[in-house]
Amino acid sequence: MQAINLAEKLATFGECWQPRTVGQFNGHDLMVVKVKGEFVWHKHDETDDFFFVLEGKVTIQMREGNVALGPGEIFVVPKGVEHCPFAEEEAHLLLIEPQGTPNTGNKATAEPRRVI
Amino acid sequence: MQAINLAEKLATFGECWQPRTVGQFNGHDLMVVKVKGEFVWHKHDETDDFFFVLEGKVTIQMREGNVALGPGEIFVVPKGVEHCPFAEEEAHLLLIEPQGTPNTGNKATAEPRRVI
Repeated sequence: MQAINLAEKLATFGECWQPRTVGQFNGHDLMVVKVKGEFVWHKHDETDDFFFVLEGKVTIQMREGNVALGPGEIFVVPKGVEHCPFAEEEAHLLLIEPQGTPNTGNKATAEPRRVI
Repeated sequence: MQAINLAEKLATFGECWQPRTVGQFNGHDLMVVKVKGEFVWHKHDETDDFFFVLEGKVTIQMREGNVALGPGEIFVVPKGVEHCPFAEEEAHLLLIEPQGTPNTGNKATAEPRRVI
């Protein structure tokens, strides 16, 4: 049992939009991810989507309006709500999702689960 | 729908060991808390216990050994494991627990749910 240092985990990879699982909590994966540019519009019908900005700025685009996030800010996209994250410059996030949740909302296009 | 700024939430209160609920996620409360000194030894039989240090240093004491945490570090106490958080100086944490989880592991001694 040891601490999970998020900066150390983030330093081990460079690719954007490829979440790494760094721990587990109540059936959820704790993940770090680097993002830059625009992701894809998607939704999760069965789960809320937790975003916590560790570094940089991220905009969660939604059909009803956008939410801008900076370091130390959290946003939870309610289940069923279409969204598309966007970052003009590289940003780093903590994500929490139930294990097995496809990051694109679609198992066919989702990134694989990568544990580090 | 708006961002949850943890520093702004933490600035609204001063008491230690009194978590404030700042959001919800998949049946869990997202909480911020200020801590200083030693809490009580306790465990949660049905839920893991998520600690993320935002500021300061916290030691999660357990019967099998301690885990020291600084800013940007996470530790998940597995369900059923006795633990007692300790902070020599004031520290600030993000906690995530299923709604209704008593912070002391005991409804009779738990802090009430305070939403801000």
